[in-house]
Amino acid sequence: MKFRLLTVLLSLSGLMARSQDSAVVRRITDEIMLHGSCYESLRGLCKNIGNRLSGSPAAAKAVQWGEKALKDAGADRVWLQPVEVPLWVRGKESLSLDFGDGKGFVSVPVLSLGNAAGTGGKMLAADLLMVRSFDEFNALDAKAVAGKVVFFDYAFRQDLINTFEGYGDAGPYRWRSPSLASAKGAAGIIIRSISTGADDAPHTGAIRYADTVKPIPAVAIGNLTADRLEKACDKKGKIKVQLKTECGMKGTAMSYNVIGELKGSEHPEEIALVGGHLDSWDVGEGAHDDGAGCVQSIEVIRTLKALNLKPKRTVRVVLFMNEENGLKGGLAYADSAKAAGEQHIFALESDAGGFSPRGFGLDMAANKKEKIRSWAPLFLRLGVYDFSQEGDGADIGPLAKQGCALSGLLPDPQRYFDVHHTRQDVFEAVNHRELKLGAAAMTALVYLVSEHGL
Amino acid sequence: MKFRLLTVLLSLSGLMARSQDSAVVRRITDEIMLHGSCYESLRGLCKNIGNRLSGSPAAAKAVQWGEKALKDAGADRVWLQPVEVPLWVRGKESLSLDFGDGKGFVSVPVLSLGNAAGTGGKMLAADLLMVRSFDEFNALDAKAVAGKVVFFDYAFRQDLINTFEGYGDAGPYRWRSPSLASAKGAAGIIIRSISTGADDAPHTGAIRYADTVKPIPAVAIGNLTADRLEKACDKKGKIKVQLKTECGMKGTAMSYNVIGELKGSEHPEEIALVGGHLDSWDVGEGAHDDGAGCVQSIEVIRTLKALNLKPKRTVRVVLFMNEENGLKGGLAYADSAKAAGEQHIFALESDAGGFSPRGFGLDMAANKKEKIRSWAPLFLRLGVYDFSQEGDGADIGPLAKQGCALSGLLPDPQRYFDVHHTRQDVFEAVNHRELKLGAAAMTALVYLVSEHGL
Repeated sequence: MKFRLLTVLLSLSGLMARSQDSAVVRRITDEIMLHGSCYESLRGLCKNIGNRLSGSPAAAKAVQWGEKALKDAGADRVWLQPVEVPLWVRGKESLSLDFGDGKGFVSVPVLSLGNAAGTGGKMLAADLLMVRSFDEFNALDAKAVAGKVVFFDYAFRQDLINTFEGYGDAGPYRWRSPSLASAKGAAGIIIRSISTGADDAPHTGAIRYADTVKPIPAVAIGNLTADRLEKACDKKGKIKVQLKTECGMKGTAMSYNVIGELKGSEHPEEIALVGGHLDSWDVGEGAHDDGAGCVQSIEVIRTLKALNLKPKRTVRVVLFMNEENGLKGGLAYADSAKAAGEQHIFALESDAGGFSPRGFGLDMAANKKEKIRSWAPLFLRLGVYDFSQEGDGADIGPLAKQGCALSGLLPDPQRYFDVHHTRQDVFEAVNHRELKLGAAAMTALVYLVSEHGL
Repeated sequence: MKFRLLTVLLSLSGLMARSQDSAVVRRITDEIMLHGSCYESLRGLCKNIGNRLSGSPAAAKAVQWGEKALKDAGADRVWLQPVEVPLWVRGKESLSLDFGDGKGFVSVPVLSLGNAAGTGGKMLAADLLMVRSFDEFNALDAKAVAGKVVFFDYAFRQDLINTFEGYGDAGPYRWRSPSLASAKGAAGIIIRSISTGADDAPHTGAIRYADTVKPIPAVAIGNLTADRLEKACDKKGKIKVQLKTECGMKGTAMSYNVIGELKGSEHPEEIALVGGHLDSWDVGEGAHDDGAGCVQSIEVIRTLKALNLKPKRTVRVVLFMNEENGLKGGLAYADSAKAAGEQHIFALESDAGGFSPRGFGLDMAANKKEKIRSWAPLFLRLGVYDFSQEGDGADIGPLAKQGCALSGLLPDPQRYFDVHHTRQDVFEAVNHRELKLGAAAMTALVYLVSEHGL
């Protein structure tokens, strides 16, 4: 009898807790949808500062912006964590193609890939060689490749519904192609952009040369130019390239992760982290990638303060530096946390765009996944239903070794790779309600972890 | 023992059927994501024809467009069904407001509401009276209202996550305000647009005057102008209005529903209908509302033909005319179906925008809902998870009386009421992958109904 009474009491208290949580999630959502400041905050970041590659003057301004935004949001404490970042500079760039149709050279939209070597401002003139896959490339003799500009024409798989799978599938054609081609003596490479876009926007993004090869120029063209080039190559015409770029690494620079927190009232030593990355590529405005994740993370603190919700565990916001071309911020943060003996119980990153939230990726022990999944019903009203996937965030990845449970916001993925790493990733591409809804889902999850632990 | 064997055989055959269905849904999705023509089809409708209010020359062109598109998609039979539609014409319109700040009259963006009476091209000059709710309006004496232009300043509830709930909540301020105000002698009304947009776009949409009142001019202003007007009114300033519009009803015109079908191979008498509406408001391009639903519906037939999937039951596509300001197409279709003794077992409408699909609204008997929900796992890969809601489509609504099971595509609702009934509802506001994913979900559901009945 006593046992049954205890069971009843326990399940009653469980129900009451759930009902309280539900009310708080509702308050959080209402606050953000009605009074959220993340959208206007993103406007400021995008329009007053714009893109902000690590080490650039704009990135330095973004650090100041982040510091002020976290203070304005009501963080107990805000500080900057020094990070030495690689400095890559684009400079001017142009690509002209002779499609072999007798019309001579035509200028096409182009972006050098990030961290790539340039042509030193000189004209690189060469014949073009198209391959459709690594298999096709690997079957070629070095003789056939030497001196050529290799066009890696691998298309984003539009049949994959989760575009992040498509990005994972096509991504190696950006990351690996420069080194592969250089090893066979190529003069440079052009890739079909890692892009779902039905347009001609080139998409940049990081590459890394193998230590054993000479860095060769590496650029991306948009899907429409790539389609045209593919057709021209299929006709066995002689295609010629004229490439002139100034980009290259310029040493390193000092920058910062920007950090703010609300100290936990009961277990201040347990840290629930939420963040995004403050740096962006040097084109567009870094709106979805990842201004969105930054302003959503700042919204977490603003909302808890606005609702006077004092977290039991410490809620810390980190705006990481250098996700795009080095990950130095994420690495420095994890090193610092380890050195300080900090206990990160949870880290959530939003770095997949400011679109309608649909779920959270969970990378953690099974019992922790189960705990988070037990909260899933609280998120259904927000359209957040998917807690089945893995996936977190590059910046928080290094915390895994310290036993930190990792999670990533999973927004609707359909539009992200239309604008990712392009001049089109601007404030206007972000919808106010979608952005806020993501912030609401993040705030709710961070609140639940801070309240109940993990 | 026999019973158990039967059970095993039945569940095995169930598993095999499920596995076959799963393979077909995958083929349908791949076909549409890789080779779907709905996006380019929408471009043609939006850019070559543009907006197409019932009875307009553009609507007549759209009928021809639809007929050709259904033939090109491979329908066995395509026909036009005559519909007499109301003809409303906008003409020129302008609104100037004196905000009482000493700066005189300022021209602001405005749209007359659909079916509204105009000022006959003459200037209507009046004082403005703001009310925030029907309660506030109902408490006013007719004396206070007479001769004024009433500003119904009710804001879209941004805290409602499902924006269609917000539309249902705010909608009466468009539909009912003209009659209410006229009954108290108002000279005209202005509404704050039924809009989630953080911008100044006015949203039009249908109104209907009660038979007992004099039709008075009725217009919408955008959220930013409404914000400014609200502030001016709160200061108790004297606000003046100058409104000049030419709109009005111009009798009726002949138009058509456009219909195409694939005859069922086993039960041709059972019809599974899928459709959208071909007419749109007379601003923008009617891209989301409802070009999207039309091209997605046409994609259903194109895809079944491309994959050589011969439906067991008849699959019929209907592009309805006059959803926006009369519903004459939906009514005529249902009347005709009844007169012909047709058996509609299912009707699906896509009229909530061409955004990422998230579910299907189900309005039908419980056992039919259960049957459709048993297919839900087949849709999860498409991000379609929600089969819990009601909601179908205005055009198919009249079929309910004939026992037809009704369903509506439920796309992500966050962006719809930013562009709904505005100049911003253009092709560029539609994303190619989101549109195609919706078409894939619709094709899969129609296929399953045609294969298994309902």
